[in-house]
Amino acid sequence: MALAREIVNKFLDSDPSPSLSQDRMKRYEKFADEIAELIRTGVLAPGERVPSVRHASRTYGVSPSTVFQAYYLLEDRGLIQARARSGYFVREHAKRPLHEPDIGTRAAETTDVGVSELVFSVLASLRDPETVPFGSAFPSPELFPMARLARSMAQSVRDMPAREVIAEMTAGNPDLRRQIALRYMVSGVMLPMEELVITSGAMEALNLCLQVVTTPGDLVAIESPAFYATLQVLERLKLKAVEIPVHPREGIDLDVLTDSLARLPIKACWFMSSLQNPLGASMGTEKKQALYALLQQHQVPLIEDDVYAELYFTKDPPKPVKSFDRDGLVMHCGSFSKSLAPGYRIGWVAGGRFAEQISRLKLMTTISPSVPAQAAIADYLQHGGYDRHLRKLRHALEMQQAAMLASAARHFPASTRVTRPSGGYFLWFEFPEQVDSLQLLQLALAQGISLAPGPIFSATQRFRNCARLNHGHPWDARSERAMELLGRMIRSF
Amino acid sequence: MALAREIVNKFLDSDPSPSLSQDRMKRYEKFADEIAELIRTGVLAPGERVPSVRHASRTYGVSPSTVFQAYYLLEDRGLIQARARSGYFVREHAKRPLHEPDIGTRAAETTDVGVSELVFSVLASLRDPETVPFGSAFPSPELFPMARLARSMAQSVRDMPAREVIAEMTAGNPDLRRQIALRYMVSGVMLPMEELVITSGAMEALNLCLQVVTTPGDLVAIESPAFYATLQVLERLKLKAVEIPVHPREGIDLDVLTDSLARLPIKACWFMSSLQNPLGASMGTEKKQALYALLQQHQVPLIEDDVYAELYFTKDPPKPVKSFDRDGLVMHCGSFSKSLAPGYRIGWVAGGRFAEQISRLKLMTTISPSVPAQAAIADYLQHGGYDRHLRKLRHALEMQQAAMLASAARHFPASTRVTRPSGGYFLWFEFPEQVDSLQLLQLALAQGISLAPGPIFSATQRFRNCARLNHGHPWDARSERAMELLGRMIRSF
Repeated sequence: MALAREIVNKFLDSDPSPSLSQDRMKRYEKFADEIAELIRTGVLAPGERVPSVRHASRTYGVSPSTVFQAYYLLEDRGLIQARARSGYFVREHAKRPLHEPDIGTRAAETTDVGVSELVFSVLASLRDPETVPFGSAFPSPELFPMARLARSMAQSVRDMPAREVIAEMTAGNPDLRRQIALRYMVSGVMLPMEELVITSGAMEALNLCLQVVTTPGDLVAIESPAFYATLQVLERLKLKAVEIPVHPREGIDLDVLTDSLARLPIKACWFMSSLQNPLGASMGTEKKQALYALLQQHQVPLIEDDVYAELYFTKDPPKPVKSFDRDGLVMHCGSFSKSLAPGYRIGWVAGGRFAEQISRLKLMTTISPSVPAQAAIADYLQHGGYDRHLRKLRHALEMQQAAMLASAARHFPASTRVTRPSGGYFLWFEFPEQVDSLQLLQLALAQGISLAPGPIFSATQRFRNCARLNHGHPWDARSERAMELLGRMIRSF
Repeated sequence: MALAREIVNKFLDSDPSPSLSQDRMKRYEKFADEIAELIRTGVLAPGERVPSVRHASRTYGVSPSTVFQAYYLLEDRGLIQARARSGYFVREHAKRPLHEPDIGTRAAETTDVGVSELVFSVLASLRDPETVPFGSAFPSPELFPMARLARSMAQSVRDMPAREVIAEMTAGNPDLRRQIALRYMVSGVMLPMEELVITSGAMEALNLCLQVVTTPGDLVAIESPAFYATLQVLERLKLKAVEIPVHPREGIDLDVLTDSLARLPIKACWFMSSLQNPLGASMGTEKKQALYALLQQHQVPLIEDDVYAELYFTKDPPKPVKSFDRDGLVMHCGSFSKSLAPGYRIGWVAGGRFAEQISRLKLMTTISPSVPAQAAIADYLQHGGYDRHLRKLRHALEMQQAAMLASAARHFPASTRVTRPSGGYFLWFEFPEQVDSLQLLQLALAQGISLAPGPIFSATQRFRNCARLNHGHPWDARSERAMELLGRMIRSF
C-alpha cells in the first residue's frame, strides 16, 4: 500500500501539464469509482477477484495504465488488496460495509436553544494537541499550502502602500473581492462585487446575516442534526430553532420545511445545502431549486452556509442555492479556512439584498478582517495555484474517508451505521442504541482520542448514540489503533 | 523652521544609545514645555523676547545645547520665532490662543440612541483618499513601522509550525499574550494571562464586553461627547444611554455619575479614562481611583476603552482605572491599531471576572483574530523596538498638535474654542454659535477637506457647532491651506 501511494503521489505531482494530469486523474479516478460502486453495492463480493488489468482494459476501453492507477487507488482506499501472482481481490473487511444512518422524518419542533454549555465543555476537552483528533472541526493544516501562503503573505505586506492598510478596512481588499467574484462567475453564479462583504471567517458572516434578518424571539429554521455553532449562535441571539430533519444523503426534508413555513412565522432559514455538517448530505440541484422557489414564495431569506463548497469528491462542484437567486434572498457564506488558509480568518458573504446592512453591522462590530491576511490570500489566488492545491486536497480527503470507512467496518460493531458523504472530512456514526456518546467521549479522551458526540449537534440533545468523526488528518497506524480502541469501547456499553 | 526640524529629527534619530537619547530628549522637552507653559499662561506675551540661550543656561541650570533643542522644538511648534541677530521671540499669532470649550455640567439624561444613520452617511463621505483627512479616525500609517512589521510578519508565517495555525485560534497567540501581560506589568498592572482575550481590534473587544454585561433595554453610562462607535453599538444592542458630561481636561463629571448611579439601574459604564475621544480629556489618577471606588460600591462593571493609552505626551503614562481593580470589575480594552499596526486588526481585553464569558462569546462570533497578524505583532514586540517607535510617534503627534493649534489660532475666529489634550491626535473645536458643523462638512468636502462634525458624537445630537479635527498626519502646506479655507468657511456662517 505504501508503494501504491508513492506511485500515485508521484503521478499526481510530477506531471508538468496540470490540465493533462487532470484529465488523466479523472479517467483513472472515474474507473476506480465505478469499481468501488460495484464493491459497495455487493456486485463484487468480499474475497472476489476484481477484473484483471488486461481484461478490464479490453472490456471497459481504458488503457492498462489507467486500470493500474485505479487499482492502486482502490488498494490505498483499503477496498482491494493484491495477492502475489493472483491479481487483486476485494478485501474481506469490506464484507459488511456499515449501513447508512436513518435520521427518519418527524415534524419540526420549535425550541429554545440551551446547548452552549455542553458544547463548550466538550470543545474544551478536545484541545489537547496530543489526542487523535477525530473530534476536531478542522482538517490537518499539513494538507494546506502554508509555505506558499507564507510567501504570498511576505510579498503582500512588503509591497503594500502604507495608506492602503487603512483604506482597505471598510470595503475589503479589492483584489480579493475580485478573485472571489471570479470564482463565483466560473462556477456559474454572477455576482456584482458590491454584494461581497469580506469577514473574519464564515462564522462572522453567519452571525452578521442572522442579526440582519432577525430580532430576539424570532423563529429560525435550522437543520437537525446541525453544526453546533449554529445552535450556539441561536442561543446567544435568543432565537428559537425550528429543527428540520436532514436525510444523510439528500439533505433537509423539504416536506417538513414546506409544512413549517406554512404553519410558523419563520424569519430565516440557515442551511448547509452541500456537504452538510455533520451528516455530509448534499441536496441535488433540482431540490435546491425547489427550496429556492419555496423560500421565494414565502419571501423568507436563506443563510446558505457553504464552507465546504470546495471539498467535493464528485466530478462537478455542487451548485449552491445562491445560483438560483434572482431576488437577492440568499446570503451565501464562504470561507478559506477549510480549503486553504486555516487561522487566517478570512471568509465572506455574498449578501444579496442584505449586503449593505451586513457591511454596516460589520463596521460596528469588528470593522474589518486583517488587511495583511486578505492581501496574502488575494495574492495566492492569483499566483499560488489554488485549483491544483484543491485537487490534491480533495484527493487526500477522499483517500482518508475510504480509510476511515474501511477501518470502521473492521473495528466497529456491525450494527453501526455510517454516512458516506461525497466530500468533506466528516463521517457521522450511529452506534447501537445503548451507546452514550458523551460517556464514550470520556472513555476515549482517557485513551488520547477525541470525537464530537451527537448531542452537541441538536437543540433538543438528540443523537445520544451518534458521533461525528474527522478524517481530515493523514491516516496512519495511530488512526487505525484509535479506531480499534473506539470499537472496543463501543462494544463495552 | 525646516532647518530646526531637520536638526531635531537628526538628533532624535542618530543617537546610538536609546536610553541616553531618551534622557536628553526628556531634558530639552521638559524645558520646552516649561517655556510653552509661560507662553500659554501669558507670562511671556506675544512679541516678547524669550530668554537668551546663555541666560537660560545659567538661570535654569541646563546646558546651552538643551536650550537650543528646546527652542528649535518651540519654533517647530509655531510658538516662537527667530529674528536675525536678536534671538527668539513669542510669535504674534500666539497673542490670543484659543480658549478651552465649556462643555458645562448638566444632569444626565436617559435616551434611546438613533444616530447610526447619520454616522454612516458622514463616514461614507470621508472615504475619498484625496481629501485632507481632518475627519479621519486614524493617524497616518506613515507614522508606523510598516516595513519592520512586514519583516516580522514574513518571518512569523515562515517559521510557524502548521499545527499552531489551528491550535492558537482559541486562546490567542501565547507569545502575544505574554508580551501584552508584560507591558501591563511594567506599567504597574499585574494581570494573570488568563484574563487576556485577543480580539479583532478593540472594537470587537468593546462589543463583546458590552454584550456580556447587558441585555437589550438596559441602561449604560457613556460619555458626552462620546466616540460615535459607542453610540452605534448601543443602538445596535438596543441599550439606553445615560450621557455623563465630560470636562475637556478632567474627564467625566463624577458628581453627575454618582447621582446617576444612585437614581438609575445602570448596568455598565463605558468610559475612556485617558485621552478620551473626541475631547482628549484624561482623568487624574486620584479621580480614577475615586471612580473605581464608586463603581465598586455599586458593583457596576466598567468597560475601560483605552485605545490611545500609548499616545501620551506627558512624562509618565496615564494609569488606567484597571490598575485599581481588585475585584475583576474592570474590562480594560486595548489595541495595536492606533499605536503600531493599523489594519492588522489586533486588540485585546483584560476581562477581569468576565474574561471567560468574553472568550466564549468570541468563539461564537468570530472564533479568533488572524493568527499570522497575532504572530507578527508578537515578534515585533519582542524584537522590533516598540518603545523606540512609540517615543518617535508621540513626538510626531505632539509636534503636529502644536502645528494645528498654531494654525487654528492664525485662521479661525478668535471666539473659537479648542481643547489641548496631553496626547492623541484629535482636537475638539467649538465654533461660534451660528456655525452648523454638518453644513460645514459639506462645504469642506467640496474643497477636498474632511472633518468629524459634532452631532455624530452625541446620542442627542448636541454639539452642532463643534467638530473633531485629526492632526495625526504630517503637517504640511496643504494642511495649513486647509485650515485657512476652513477658517473662511466658519466665518461665512
